[in-house]
Amino acid sequence: MKPIYVGLLGTGTVGGGTYAVLKRNQSEISRRTGRNIEIRMIADLDQEKARCLTAGDNVTITNDAFEVARHPEIDIVIELIGGETVAREVMLAAIEHGKHVITANKALLAKHGNEIFAAAHQRGVIVAFEAAVAGGIPIIKVLREGLSANRIEWIAGIINGTSNFILSEMHSKGLDFSAVLAEAQRLGYAEADPTYDIEGIDAAHKITIMAALAFGVPVRFDQVYVEGITRLANEDIRYAEELGYRIKLLGITKRVAKGIELRVHPALIPVKRLIANVEGVMNAVIVNGNAVGSTLYYGAGAGANPTASAVIADLVDVARLLTASPEQRVPVLAFLPELLSDTPIVTMEDVETAHYLRLQVTDKTGVLADVTRVLADHGISINAMVQKEHHEGEDKVNIIMLTHKTLERQVNDAIAKIQNLPAMIDQIIRIRLEELGS
Amino acid sequence: MKPIYVGLLGTGTVGGGTYAVLKRNQSEISRRTGRNIEIRMIADLDQEKARCLTAGDNVTITNDAFEVARHPEIDIVIELIGGETVAREVMLAAIEHGKHVITANKALLAKHGNEIFAAAHQRGVIVAFEAAVAGGIPIIKVLREGLSANRIEWIAGIINGTSNFILSEMHSKGLDFSAVLAEAQRLGYAEADPTYDIEGIDAAHKITIMAALAFGVPVRFDQVYVEGITRLANEDIRYAEELGYRIKLLGITKRVAKGIELRVHPALIPVKRLIANVEGVMNAVIVNGNAVGSTLYYGAGAGANPTASAVIADLVDVARLLTASPEQRVPVLAFLPELLSDTPIVTMEDVETAHYLRLQVTDKTGVLADVTRVLADHGISINAMVQKEHHEGEDKVNIIMLTHKTLERQVNDAIAKIQNLPAMIDQIIRIRLEELGS
Repeated sequence: MKPIYVGLLGTGTVGGGTYAVLKRNQSEISRRTGRNIEIRMIADLDQEKARCLTAGDNVTITNDAFEVARHPEIDIVIELIGGETVAREVMLAAIEHGKHVITANKALLAKHGNEIFAAAHQRGVIVAFEAAVAGGIPIIKVLREGLSANRIEWIAGIINGTSNFILSEMHSKGLDFSAVLAEAQRLGYAEADPTYDIEGIDAAHKITIMAALAFGVPVRFDQVYVEGITRLANEDIRYAEELGYRIKLLGITKRVAKGIELRVHPALIPVKRLIANVEGVMNAVIVNGNAVGSTLYYGAGAGANPTASAVIADLVDVARLLTASPEQRVPVLAFLPELLSDTPIVTMEDVETAHYLRLQVTDKTGVLADVTRVLADHGISINAMVQKEHHEGEDKVNIIMLTHKTLERQVNDAIAKIQNLPAMIDQIIRIRLEELGS
Repeated sequence: MKPIYVGLLGTGTVGGGTYAVLKRNQSEISRRTGRNIEIRMIADLDQEKARCLTAGDNVTITNDAFEVARHPEIDIVIELIGGETVAREVMLAAIEHGKHVITANKALLAKHGNEIFAAAHQRGVIVAFEAAVAGGIPIIKVLREGLSANRIEWIAGIINGTSNFILSEMHSKGLDFSAVLAEAQRLGYAEADPTYDIEGIDAAHKITIMAALAFGVPVRFDQVYVEGITRLANEDIRYAEELGYRIKLLGITKRVAKGIELRVHPALIPVKRLIANVEGVMNAVIVNGNAVGSTLYYGAGAGANPTASAVIADLVDVARLLTASPEQRVPVLAFLPELLSDTPIVTMEDVETAHYLRLQVTDKTGVLADVTRVLADHGISINAMVQKEHHEGEDKVNIIMLTHKTLERQVNDAIAKIQNLPAMIDQIIRIRLEELGS
């Protein structure tokens, strides 16, 4: 059979990794597919880099991604340029020219996925994006195929390695956020501008994509609630630990009566859960389905080789179904495009979770009575409470409370009221708490 | 489009679960597939049970599984009879009649898989068996598709829930094997005859199947090394814990220079590994690939609904590719049948692992010198050693050693020699140790 010709756009970390892994594992991969999959064209602005990568191989190199996207010989285009401008245009051009597209571009799919998926559907081509979420963990395949018997109930994941590395280090070394961030930047685990990672935006891209796959809804990045880890104090990590919890940045999506929850924020998780023990740059995703219960998927969420593993798995899948009819293919968003649902995203105010609250107060009689009165008035019941001296001899104390599940709105109102009590010294710290039980 | 007609053989726990889950999630499943998948015939010796299950649905019930396997209207046969006699014959009959077959029967596949897979290949039909390994965890799909870019290096898994439940209870409650087994039987976690579970045979079936998928070799159940958990003492679980390890029953398969390791036995695992913290009846499998590194998959390994989740995921896959050409399908054993390899299974004597050794000796001068001399003579180096009084005031002491990696043969020889030393009181305890690092 004729080999399958692939065009690769971008030879950065993931592009270079993809080229190298495909070459290294070529014989293993053709034992699986029975066909040769050849990267035949590469586009990169830095053509010299592309030339070094392909050293002597029969690959056409260009600086024009559109030339590859439109080339009649190319069957599949792998978009690893990143960004949301050229990447979007070139992907749409490839689709228009009847190419199947593979991408790792989570930002693009989270923001422009609906447009791209619609174009692909109309043209009858595949858009595959295993590498866009959780790197080498085949979580897209799990959601689309492995758990297809289930009504998915919820997903919760550690899906940003940089922020998990920072939280792990804060926990294990007792350091503050800024110190660890600097270290992470030095080690190359955090970028010079780490905003996307530490502010939860990258995780929001990924949970947006997973929500679409889990519930059969369009991507709705504009409706994700996003809160990062920049304001987490080491103190709270320590207190959480004393109470049996660990703090992780989670992407969460959940089917509830009012619609779908879609949120990224730090959360306390019981230490006994496996996911609470995921350390360093690793990723892990829990998927809960109504038949299978909770399942967990763990692995490297980034890096050249793990991400290449995901890109090439897509390549093998797409190659196998190159000439298949649409009914023979797994729908791009797991559900038939004409059967997507418009279930609304629940606003954060309507989300119900337990909370960790830390109040910094002057140590005077009656403070606790005032605080608990406000909480009771807002229907918030307390699950556990401890009082901690802030520093020896100081007048300031920390009151830490774990609440039962309460509507976010109620908690917001109560916090605003409590914040105005005369004994309050500083901003009230609030971190949501997720039991993640089956 | 015409619905897909399915014949279900067996309405026990998994069969009943499959029927119920398929019905309960029908609308979700047809949103994914665009086709109706209908269980049209059921075979069970207990026809009354089948009648209760299907209550009023349009399903033909028979006590003759072969009638279903041969019925011209049936597209897919789900074999959930179990056992290795009728199940084998009826599966071969279904294949002969051009039906695709889905099964959860690990014993049958581990022992007769080569015959069954060859028959299916010849007839151009699919044999799908996601439910045969690790219940609801889609590990077969991960091995065949999700990690297809990788050369798989090794797999290690907790793949028998009963034995993991027993080990978890021994650990958390400080009880002995027999006490926990009785409790597990009372709770229904262990069968009246628990041999398959506690002697590692069930885990051996599953690791045999995973090895075939990972390395592209035939199933070779007759060559698995199998050792169960019946001889584990609570003492060893405790000592292991003090040294930072937990004892789990692992199925392991690994690519090494001499061939493929294929073994089931209890092993010490560092407590810091996620898999060491998998408790109760849950399953978890680590897959290490040369691109992705180590990934872990966790979930319920048994039970009606989780296993049904796997059966139905297969059903959706098979339904989608009902009329596809063989090249469009993922090969049953992950690699093209004509490209399977005959890489040999390494005998246990040639396996290299670290070891935990517990020597029970009379507390006399020179014992340790004698022991360490024998170890040194066999090229075995010690990584850690502790001495424990057996009971207060007793003359007997426990010497616990962790060795570096050594050939099994060397360890066997050394143990035989040490056992003959005059100070030895009881049988030497030896448990293998697996770091499971990337």
